[in-house]
Amino acid sequence: MIIVMRIGASEEDIRGVEERVRELGYQPHTIQGEVRAVVAAVGDESVNASLEPLSHLPPVDHVMPVQKKYKLISREVHPESAVVKVAEGVEIGGETLHVVAGPCSVENEEMVVQTAVAVRDAGATLFRGGAYKPRTSPYSFQGLGREGLRLLQIAKEASGLPIITELVKEGDIDAVCEVADVLQIGARNALNYALLEAAADTHKPILLKRGIASTIQEWLLAAEYIAKQGNSNVILCERGIRTFETATRNTLDLGAIGVAKLESRLPVLADPSHGAGRWDLIDPLSRAAIAVGADGLLIEVHPEPEMALSDGDQQLQPVDFADLMKKISPFVQAAGRVLSNPSATPVA
Amino acid sequence: MIIVMRIGASEEDIRGVEERVRELGYQPHTIQGEVRAVVAAVGDESVNASLEPLSHLPPVDHVMPVQKKYKLISREVHPESAVVKVAEGVEIGGETLHVVAGPCSVENEEMVVQTAVAVRDAGATLFRGGAYKPRTSPYSFQGLGREGLRLLQIAKEASGLPIITELVKEGDIDAVCEVADVLQIGARNALNYALLEAAADTHKPILLKRGIASTIQEWLLAAEYIAKQGNSNVILCERGIRTFETATRNTLDLGAIGVAKLESRLPVLADPSHGAGRWDLIDPLSRAAIAVGADGLLIEVHPEPEMALSDGDQQLQPVDFADLMKKISPFVQAAGRVLSNPSATPVA
Amino acid sequence: MIIVMRIGASEEDIRGVEERVRELGYQPHTIQGEVRAVVAAVGDESVNASLEPLSHLPPVDHVMPVQKKYKLISREVHPESAVVKVAEGVEIGGETLHVVAGPCSVENEEMVVQTAVAVRDAGATLFRGGAYKPRTSPYSFQGLGREGLRLLQIAKEASGLPIITELVKEGDIDAVCEVADVLQIGARNALNYALLEAAADTHKPILLKRGIASTIQEWLLAAEYIAKQGNSNVILCERGIRTFETATRNTLDLGAIGVAKLESRLPVLADPSHGAGRWDLIDPLSRAAIAVGADGLLIEVHPEPEMALSDGDQQLQPVDFADLMKKISPFVQAAGRVLSNPSATPVA
Amino acid sequence: MIIVMRIGASEEDIRGVEERVRELGYQPHTIQGEVRAVVAAVGDESVNASLEPLSHLPPVDHVMPVQKKYKLISREVHPESAVVKVAEGVEIGGETLHVVAGPCSVENEEMVVQTAVAVRDAGATLFRGGAYKPRTSPYSFQGLGREGLRLLQIAKEASGLPIITELVKEGDIDAVCEVADVLQIGARNALNYALLEAAADTHKPILLKRGIASTIQEWLLAAEYIAKQGNSNVILCERGIRTFETATRNTLDLGAIGVAKLESRLPVLADPSHGAGRWDLIDPLSRAAIAVGADGLLIEVHPEPEMALSDGDQQLQPVDFADLMKKISPFVQAAGRVLSNPSATPVA
Repeated sequence: MIIVMRIGASEEDIRGVEERVRELGYQPHTIQGEVRAVVAAVGDESVNASLEPLSHLPPVDHVMPVQKKYKLISREVHPESAVVKVAEGVEIGGETLHVVAGPCSVENEEMVVQTAVAVRDAGATLFRGGAYKPRTSPYSFQGLGREGLRLLQIAKEASGLPIITELVKEGDIDAVCEVADVLQIGARNALNYALLEAAADTHKPILLKRGIASTIQEWLLAAEYIAKQGNSNVILCERGIRTFETATRNTLDLGAIGVAKLESRLPVLADPSHGAGRWDLIDPLSRAAIAVGADGLLIEVHPEPEMALSDGDQQLQPVDFADLMKKISPFVQAAGRVLSNPSATPVA
Repeated sequence: MIIVMRIGASEEDIRGVEERVRELGYQPHTIQGEVRAVVAAVGDESVNASLEPLSHLPPVDHVMPVQKKYKLISREVHPESAVVKVAEGVEIGGETLHVVAGPCSVENEEMVVQTAVAVRDAGATLFRGGAYKPRTSPYSFQGLGREGLRLLQIAKEASGLPIITELVKEGDIDAVCEVADVLQIGARNALNYALLEAAADTHKPILLKRGIASTIQEWLLAAEYIAKQGNSNVILCERGIRTFETATRNTLDLGAIGVAKLESRLPVLADPSHGAGRWDLIDPLSRAAIAVGADGLLIEVHPEPEMALSDGDQQLQPVDFADLMKKISPFVQAAGRVLSNPSATPVA
Repeated sequence: MIIVMRIGASEEDIRGVEERVRELGYQPHTIQGEVRAVVAAVGDESVNASLEPLSHLPPVDHVMPVQKKYKLISREVHPESAVVKVAEGVEIGGETLHVVAGPCSVENEEMVVQTAVAVRDAGATLFRGGAYKPRTSPYSFQGLGREGLRLLQIAKEASGLPIITELVKEGDIDAVCEVADVLQIGARNALNYALLEAAADTHKPILLKRGIASTIQEWLLAAEYIAKQGNSNVILCERGIRTFETATRNTLDLGAIGVAKLESRLPVLADPSHGAGRWDLIDPLSRAAIAVGADGLLIEVHPEPEMALSDGDQQLQPVDFADLMKKISPFVQAAGRVLSNPSATPVA
Repeated sequence: MIIVMRIGASEEDIRGVEERVRELGYQPHTIQGEVRAVVAAVGDESVNASLEPLSHLPPVDHVMPVQKKYKLISREVHPESAVVKVAEGVEIGGETLHVVAGPCSVENEEMVVQTAVAVRDAGATLFRGGAYKPRTSPYSFQGLGREGLRLLQIAKEASGLPIITELVKEGDIDAVCEVADVLQIGARNALNYALLEAAADTHKPILLKRGIASTIQEWLLAAEYIAKQGNSNVILCERGIRTFETATRNTLDLGAIGVAKLESRLPVLADPSHGAGRWDLIDPLSRAAIAVGADGLLIEVHPEPEMALSDGDQQLQPVDFADLMKKISPFVQAAGRVLSNPSATPVA
């Protein structure tokens, strides 16, 4: 921590700050600048108390943290990239770029099986679908719940694809874990640390979406919460942040994928469906996400988007998804990666 | 809903949209403008499917919702203001302006009792303190948990003040409800609908903080989630939103208090401690919040802020809190309200 | 400046950074922390080169500035508050709180004279009105230009009120200065430094609006540009910033007024008309601005807002303005200030 | 325009609104919904007055514009893409993807010539460099001015590359036009309409950066300002927007490039140097910009970035720029485009 003193702080003021710094477990080193003094506090900020409250002392102008708070997921500490195995033959973060696809919400057996088989045939390697849907309005469709999980199991058997689905509360964990290969923590629960810890304790791989207004640091620290519980199978997912722009539902922050790959060792996916909230931008943003270095994509696919019970404006039809998979192929190659062989066969 | 067609959409395109509108339960009314056509869909958006997915149809340019989704808390529907009784003689939303005060975190018995008595003597009518603290870093102090709740009970008995404390997960509800008179839903859980519903079911009054990036509409719809469970004792709390500005921790959106009072019938508090994240702005922002029409304030008070285990930079010392109460008094009067008599006496 | 090294930076890396620091005119002081080293560079950042480019060196993690860049307007450097005299008997920043009122755009002689007299009679002490209007669309009404300035002169003579009007380009300076007592720099030109310098050179008082996305630091540095030209008659004006919220046109950042008053010695006005973009929030936000410590208000008033050529949704009718002046009165008093005597008499 | 009435608006209220709509030059069509009425106003919003002020009428809840305000640059109106010729053999918006490169500021003859030749040899087809630099602090280096323009002319002759440089005020136009092939309007002047019109009148191609907080609509309308002056040679440039994220200087909004290409017919460049403000993200964001469909890139290159007088943290060394050009090559190919032949030869 660096404690910046106000102009005109006296020797006595500085001694007072140095004393507090020592009380809190750090060694103070004061440097008298031309305009003002700074006190550098040497010590491990992760085991000692925070020094930020010292900004409360009148002769202190402000306090600046130096150290980063994430360790287990830090690339600076652990340079090698993590690879997360989510199912037999499906490893995220390696050479293969994975595409997760499926409807926003599971609506009925026919649509879920049809979509799962179609996206598998087009090259998707995981199937996504929401059984529990957090919706802005209490009057909107909230998902089929347990029945939705049952339908996901049927889709899994029909398509052979591993399943990723969202967990919205601790009470659902056992039921969700029966069918899910990967637990998704959605943007609205991105800072719900109780849920993160409960999900971590299942030891399932966790797909951690960035919160709609989470800084990259908050997002990485949310991942550190999971890692600290002993579960290092975390996959990050950038899904757009909230900005002043209204032409898109969110602003997909592809630079954040770059930063997350530099700062952490975790794999990172991109979700262009939520990132733009517009089906007509999924294609260009998918290409861009691959080019920026994402380890995979999440794409919403629905057999009849204009009749979907949720998020119809950002879902692709299966035929357009197949087309997307063809269009991204040269970019996957340019990025030095491969798409997995789309020849998956049904489990059952 | 208004469906705006693209320039050059054909008669057949428009017929197709009208048909979809009817299938989804609405009556279409098409108006041919000079430049483009619009289709107005008449029907109740809260019982029929959303029409937003129609933006997926190629001849549709965009879709604009007309109706507001909140009903139970809507002032347009229920013009009279709600008053929430949180304890004997403590009603929020009426003529009396209430000040909630206490430390960010409960740290030990001495500090919590000392603070509760001090803020009561200065005129606070509720005591706040966190036993469960959601913190950005997993390595920061996370609150004392159950022991913190026990200390809050001691403070309640010593001061006679009703207690408001944060609920972070469903599993803690019974323990928290034993001591809490008001359950706080924090900014990080503002869109955690599972927690909102569980909190609503206790029938305790709920203090609902605005999420750090929640629009006013999302905030009011979160309140509607609680009301829809049959609990209309909701107190809104504006605590600052995330913007590009870094001189303050958040941007206290006092205009949002104005909008919330126009749009909803619920009482609204302001939290200048989180709103600015700087102790030196608590005084001016408290005055401003009273002037804009807030029904009360949340102020963080700690006996020794510069040694606090959390948020020390935004907490006031008890002596400064007493000073604040004096300074706000003329503004309370100018607003046509009264501060409650600070002569509370211990319960036990 | 504090240069934070990467974990594992070698002795040689640190020597290299120290050398660069010396080359750029600073003295390096290296502190070896438990986790990483920091190099504090002692020297005056305002006369030497910036050290931020050192973040380009691979062993450097990041660089943190310590010093503030504004000096002439700094309260830390010059503690006494500045008072800006804009006309005989009209001093902004003193005990008297001033209300500037008038239409968004000058539309015709009748409306401008009628409004000027009405706002004067209700207690306004300056008249505002736009002759040059920067509009988002090139097809919107752009102001009457020279003819608008002529009408402002007529309004000035009829009402006796000093005039504040916006300057949008250097070429208009002479014409604008003939009628204007205060030159307004609008939000869109808040970082147009060429215009700021040209305006400063007139030695007229300058009303400097905060840019729609300017940080407080950028806003204060824009004021420093003016002061550096030798014109210290700068009045700051907070008029709302751009955020994700759409229920209001902008988010009025009243905390920024608090910060600007702490950091700078300049007077600060608030513009609730633009701050909210909604006439129904002007009243509560005006009260709040006074309470937070603003030295005055800017209020848009139009005889028939629903027919206005610009910004009709945020203008008050004269009768509502008179009502507003009555409603703010107790808050002005609570703030320990006075409204000027509204008995202005015509100049001519 | 759609005028949404409040719940409970009477027949008379609606008649009143219809009358105002007619007075303002539109035909009203009222639709009585289940919950509230809406009045659709038919007429050309670009020639009649705005209807937004009608939100001032008490029975009106809000007003929603339907029509888009840009016409000349609209793809909906003019479907074919525009190609802007900036010099013999350099056309932006066609099959060839162009890379503009050069230092943030022109500092001296040696560096500018050396950089121009180096970037040309690596494949850049335009040379950029600032002679006039708008800087946040008045104490920062402001560019060499006229001397900088002279050095750009030397660089042009030495490298044969056309020049793009920023215009910051009308008074500099003649001098800047002598050397510039393309006039750049920077982010701070993105809504300085007086400057846009003056620049347009030169009939030079204009590179229009998006303002730091401009919506896509505001950006396109700024382009419409230029087109309305009769200059259709506009090149858009996305350079990052201001958000809450601090790990990057700005948030490069690649989705906005997608929207701009769908909505307008103009070519769009991306500026990853400003977009991220970090040299270590230029490579991934350049690849992503190409993949999303940008027509070219702006890259800052400086022979010794860590000693640069401005923006050193985001400039590449020439050797790294050459490396970047190699790395982007497969993405250019994947995007179905070509890089121009880097065999330019000196003009003189």
